[in-house]
Amino acid sequence: MFGQSGGPTSVINASAAGVFLQALSEDCITKVYGAAHGIRGVLEENFYDIGQEDRAELELLKTTPSSALGSVRYKLADPDKDDTDFKRLLEVFKKYDVRYFFYNGGNDSMDTCNKVSKFMQKAGYEMRVIGVPKTIDNDLWATDHCPGFGSAAKYIAVSTMEVYQDARVYDTGMVTILEIMGRNAGWLTAASALASLKGMGPDLIYLPEKVFDMDQFLDRVKELYAKNNKVIVAVSEGIKDKDGRYVSEYGSDLASQRDAFGHAQMGGLASTLAAYVKKATGAKVRGIEFSLLQRCAAHIASATDIEEAFLAGQAAVKAAVEGKTDLMVAFERAPGKEYKCNIKLVGLHEVANKEKKVPDEWILPDGQGVTQDYIDYALPLIQGTTTLPFEDGLPRFAKLKKVPAKF
Amino acid sequence: MFGQSGGPTSVINASAAGVFLQALSEDCITKVYGAAHGIRGVLEENFYDIGQEDRAELELLKTTPSSALGSVRYKLADPDKDDTDFKRLLEVFKKYDVRYFFYNGGNDSMDTCNKVSKFMQKAGYEMRVIGVPKTIDNDLWATDHCPGFGSAAKYIAVSTMEVYQDARVYDTGMVTILEIMGRNAGWLTAASALASLKGMGPDLIYLPEKVFDMDQFLDRVKELYAKNNKVIVAVSEGIKDKDGRYVSEYGSDLASQRDAFGHAQMGGLASTLAAYVKKATGAKVRGIEFSLLQRCAAHIASATDIEEAFLAGQAAVKAAVEGKTDLMVAFERAPGKEYKCNIKLVGLHEVANKEKKVPDEWILPDGQGVTQDYIDYALPLIQGTTTLPFEDGLPRFAKLKKVPAKF
Repeated sequence: MFGQSGGPTSVINASAAGVFLQALSEDCITKVYGAAHGIRGVLEENFYDIGQEDRAELELLKTTPSSALGSVRYKLADPDKDDTDFKRLLEVFKKYDVRYFFYNGGNDSMDTCNKVSKFMQKAGYEMRVIGVPKTIDNDLWATDHCPGFGSAAKYIAVSTMEVYQDARVYDTGMVTILEIMGRNAGWLTAASALASLKGMGPDLIYLPEKVFDMDQFLDRVKELYAKNNKVIVAVSEGIKDKDGRYVSEYGSDLASQRDAFGHAQMGGLASTLAAYVKKATGAKVRGIEFSLLQRCAAHIASATDIEEAFLAGQAAVKAAVEGKTDLMVAFERAPGKEYKCNIKLVGLHEVANKEKKVPDEWILPDGQGVTQDYIDYALPLIQGTTTLPFEDGLPRFAKLKKVPAKF
Repeated sequence: MFGQSGGPTSVINASAAGVFLQALSEDCITKVYGAAHGIRGVLEENFYDIGQEDRAELELLKTTPSSALGSVRYKLADPDKDDTDFKRLLEVFKKYDVRYFFYNGGNDSMDTCNKVSKFMQKAGYEMRVIGVPKTIDNDLWATDHCPGFGSAAKYIAVSTMEVYQDARVYDTGMVTILEIMGRNAGWLTAASALASLKGMGPDLIYLPEKVFDMDQFLDRVKELYAKNNKVIVAVSEGIKDKDGRYVSEYGSDLASQRDAFGHAQMGGLASTLAAYVKKATGAKVRGIEFSLLQRCAAHIASATDIEEAFLAGQAAVKAAVEGKTDLMVAFERAPGKEYKCNIKLVGLHEVANKEKKVPDEWILPDGQGVTQDYIDYALPLIQGTTTLPFEDGLPRFAKLKKVPAKF
């Protein structure tokens, strides 16, 4: 049983391909199920028989963005307080004789995976549970990086270069503000700095790891605007002021709505900052929100990311078949100048609910950019061009039959 | 002398490459100049000696977005009322013995080109003036389509497909609103319908050619939301209500600022509509503005568009060398099922300041989508993948030396 959870990425389906193709090739695995909308699909006995799918379509999953099975944001209760869901999961697992459970997601999903693993152990139900990492935010603990990040980073670096080209076209002044995803960790916002390698990076980069000071920000923009007539700013959706208040809340009440995990819903930061900058400088200001595009733009996915996402799925199945359980697949960078990442396995409890942030020493002392160390870290992850096939000038994404599993 | 004018596109530099490479190969042309920031560069005697550039970099212009020479939005006066600028142009042309003038742009730029042509004729200065069409808006008169449109259309079709994938990930309800450029003509917004070929198009498409009715819109969204739980809407930035008021003005005062051509500055429509829909449906709503990305995303440019943009530049020079003048390069679609466009020349006066809109018969009777005729028209224009080279995982754009022309 495999499920996809949390926000989609350009390569979460590449991990699905890795899990499915490997599982279908294992003699000890007789049926391969894909849960509709993650853990909820298991609870509701709503899953697909992956053995019915065409191999060619499963291969195409490698270059198909988003979550082909559907995702979910569903927080399982603490089993010590309410074990209803867990009992139900056990019931379904028993009914279909599910002995391998793979869950693909970020911190919250690894919490789900961890709880399922521990409960099944406690219940004496023999089952192997392996987490497959995924998140554009790159904030998972105990892994060098996460599948999903490299492709989003590539989208951001390339788009920043293209916007840079566009923003310099007129000789009139202009300030451009790029709003990038990343609630608490600035990995993705920092990826805009990769454009600096080609001399087309932002002038200022603000990560959520540092307190944001509006006055300081406006002073810096004014200074650069006076000097260069053009300013590009990259800013994380999650920047907060010294009182811990989201800057995006300054201009809207959107952030007052929270999702099931207690996360505030972000948005509108670029236009809020644009309004402040316009008032302070009188300049023409354009706020650009990369929005969903940064996490679903499969057409500019990183080949390295696709391959690693696939390998992560494959490795999860291999590990489980070898008898391992209660672990998450992780990446460990080999030492040396040339980029190489090896796969390792880490305990689910080490990962669940933790967040890895950009190290302080990788952020410039003034909090307005990142160091070469970050560039050296991120650059290998955006290498290579996707092999996404085109048909009629449009992407050819995987089409699954989604045949419901029969009991 | 060649100048780039108006808003940038992914392929305006491909036309520059066509003009430059052809001009450099013509015996009768002894010097090739590129004007910095369009007509203003000529007025200010600020232009580059293109003969000093490396051929390989000029070739790279084909896949480099935006305007490499810099663009301008500068409206020349009516020469009958104020001929100061025109006299200055004549002075500069005489000084450098400029006998060929090529200007790359949209309606406003063709107005500039037309005025320059007529003034030089009247002044008895022998000069050949040819316009090269360019606009993502595709609203130029007397040509089947405009270079720049195909690439922007491809970006929009592909991004719409990717957003569709992303927006269906959760089983919770969601309305997504895509805001697309196009002030008065809906060609580009309609390109979202190309995603329908793969079953991933918007449910509703609103073009500026039709009056927008907020109540009708909300009723349709409510109806579709109740039925499908997911709704995707594509909307042109320029939609207006029955009183002629921009819908984008409902929520902001941004549109009160007008540029040199009297155009209102657009923006904020997606979030304005999102607020209305949220209130009417209670659904989760996401507004996505494709913003600058749609006109500068060279990484997903259409190969057909790049080639045609190059050919248009080349054809302009060839025509001028043959003695033709006062014309614009245009495309004429050959009859038959297979796509083929031939180049023709049309009078500048036929094009200047006119706007071509989406024909009424290509818009669905309810004003909420487009017909198969539009698809048949637009689909050939997005074919083929760009050969944009990558270096370090990032695009390798042209780097011009920009050596100032010496007198």
